[in-house]
Amino acid sequence: MYLFGKLHLLRIILILIFASAQLTAFAQEAIIKAGKLYTIESEILNEERKIAVFTPDGYAEGQVTYHVMYLLDAEWNFKYVAALLDKLTAAGEIPGILLIGVVNNNRNRDLTPAGKNDNPARFGGGKKFLDFLTQELQPWVKQNYRTHPYSILAGHSFGGLFTVYTTMEEPERFQAYIALSPSLGRNGEQQVKKADAYYEQNAPIPESIYVAVGNEGGYTAISTKKYAHILQDQESGLRFKFEKLEDSSHESITIEGFIHGLKFIYEGFNLEQFPELDEIFLVEEHYKKLSERFGYELKVPESQYQRFAREQMVTKEWDYARFILSQYEKHYPGSIELVSLKADLNLLTGDFKEALKYYEMLNSLGVESESLSRIIKELKD
Amino acid sequence: MYLFGKLHLLRIILILIFASAQLTAFAQEAIIKAGKLYTIESEILNEERKIAVFTPDGYAEGQVTYHVMYLLDAEWNFKYVAALLDKLTAAGEIPGILLIGVVNNNRNRDLTPAGKNDNPARFGGGKKFLDFLTQELQPWVKQNYRTHPYSILAGHSFGGLFTVYTTMEEPERFQAYIALSPSLGRNGEQQVKKADAYYEQNAPIPESIYVAVGNEGGYTAISTKKYAHILQDQESGLRFKFEKLEDSSHESITIEGFIHGLKFIYEGFNLEQFPELDEIFLVEEHYKKLSERFGYELKVPESQYQRFAREQMVTKEWDYARFILSQYEKHYPGSIELVSLKADLNLLTGDFKEALKYYEMLNSLGVESESLSRIIKELKD
Repeated sequence: MYLFGKLHLLRIILILIFASAQLTAFAQEAIIKAGKLYTIESEILNEERKIAVFTPDGYAEGQVTYHVMYLLDAEWNFKYVAALLDKLTAAGEIPGILLIGVVNNNRNRDLTPAGKNDNPARFGGGKKFLDFLTQELQPWVKQNYRTHPYSILAGHSFGGLFTVYTTMEEPERFQAYIALSPSLGRNGEQQVKKADAYYEQNAPIPESIYVAVGNEGGYTAISTKKYAHILQDQESGLRFKFEKLEDSSHESITIEGFIHGLKFIYEGFNLEQFPELDEIFLVEEHYKKLSERFGYELKVPESQYQRFAREQMVTKEWDYARFILSQYEKHYPGSIELVSLKADLNLLTGDFKEALKYYEMLNSLGVESESLSRIIKELKD
Repeated sequence: MYLFGKLHLLRIILILIFASAQLTAFAQEAIIKAGKLYTIESEILNEERKIAVFTPDGYAEGQVTYHVMYLLDAEWNFKYVAALLDKLTAAGEIPGILLIGVVNNNRNRDLTPAGKNDNPARFGGGKKFLDFLTQELQPWVKQNYRTHPYSILAGHSFGGLFTVYTTMEEPERFQAYIALSPSLGRNGEQQVKKADAYYEQNAPIPESIYVAVGNEGGYTAISTKKYAHILQDQESGLRFKFEKLEDSSHESITIEGFIHGLKFIYEGFNLEQFPELDEIFLVEEHYKKLSERFGYELKVPESQYQRFAREQMVTKEWDYARFILSQYEKHYPGSIELVSLKADLNLLTGDFKEALKYYEMLNSLGVESESLSRIIKELKD
């Protein structure tokens, strides 16, 4: 019980923070596994389809629901986008997102809207493929995974063409769209002409649309710029961004394009962009606004409660620290990190009996570390 | 045998090209697997180490050797960098690269060079870890994989610090380095001071060094800028690039930083940057120069021989097409695409017997497609 006499307050806190950093377990196989592969039967397409699924970190242990990203050309894009989502989430740039990759059976047939001169065996099956996505795949995903309604559709080249097509054909099915180097020159710029007429009649429904082309010549670049021009003229609630990525080719645009697209859709999500949000209630307010934008309750990340609680503990603002932890508990009642902070707070305020209770709770929850054992031993002595 | 009467020349070629595009088989499980995980025994560190390995597309079937990238903090970076290499290679921005990810056992201990005030149980084991990398891991990789000597070392934060440390401690072990937001403020800017003295005495040995910081405050940004200043002053053969990535934080810098670093190391590799290389001998000359830079024979990609051969076939320059295919054969004697082009060329020049021979060879090599069966049937009739 003579802990306090021996160690400086701040040093204890640093040790405790170090101990809590060890809480994050990590699975070895997660290093090399990007997702799971399923085969599902499509009645609409009358064939089997391969679907690749990536679940965000913590999905298995958690209860929350996730935004869903539907990704075309999964055989080329899935592994990269899954790893990218992982990275962007870990860096706090986006929330955890469930990724659904659709592997091609017949790419030319499925990703192209029907045109007058198409041989229907080889091109123009876009409508049927969209029906598969919305009437079979989306229900399958909802049934098998914890999802909430905000969904993204993303594609490249023919996949980008299909993405643009969907924004007008069934705009309410996805809330955000990423179209990279879309093949909008196809069928005499069919989709560009459609957009011109469509937006005369209809206000855009999606929340966000991101479109990019690389440093590439030809019809794709030209037609996409025309399309962007039409969308940029819309004075509605639509969030639209068009970019030319000078360092990318038609092929390599999927690398930086998905990064830019995701950052655009989730603009405002990363708190580091807002150094003025230096109180927990300002952060909660910010997330309330984001929640309104995305149409569901977006929770303040645990890390924020931890950060603010620790700050108060360092400056010995015990009451405010307790208030932050009570807010933390409201949103994350079962959190191990919360138990750890409660233990630390009680230790620092001299309530050793309570502190011991929470440290032992940590132990019983499977947390093991040298500093934890040492503290429990000292508190028992 | 009345094929020519029925179809226009160009249309045949397009069908053949379409058939050959189908040659590229792709394994379903490759969509969701990023690599293999090994456990190896380190005598130097007296512990087991986890090593994650990604092999580039075509590795299993091929004979060629590959550049090797050694990546620190594999538990956070491996999946992303493996997928990124895949993408950059497919887009023609870099050659196929073998990725070796080193999973941490004790990150603080291994990635920090020894400093005066370090508790050696927790910090400062950098030299021993470097010995493990160069005396145990590199030989293991050479023994188990087809490698050639050009190697890259890449790391972030503490991993970036270790990377910078290695450029001076054993500069000849890796030919290129990527250090992202390196923790150069550590131990009173120990490595920055060392660099200042070191480059007074020594010319830099590595071929390329890429360093970046994000839009981040604190010691890391300040000390890294000082370090960059020292390296930028070197008037030697060193290729050095320093960037501040404004849209990245200390955490998210690994996303764009690895892209920029790899593009810098392999600057000149993507032929799209050189539209003036419009003859096969110019391309071969360009690759000869790249080969000199990288210190080993860098082969003209198969796709280039295919592209130029097809161009000549479209313009009916048969002799030149034959010459290109003979060059192609010199470098890729067992290529299936080469057999396919030989078949097409013989078909187009009317040597149906030879054409049939090569189409049947394709068949016996396991290539199956509707158009291939149709052509074989027509040639036999």
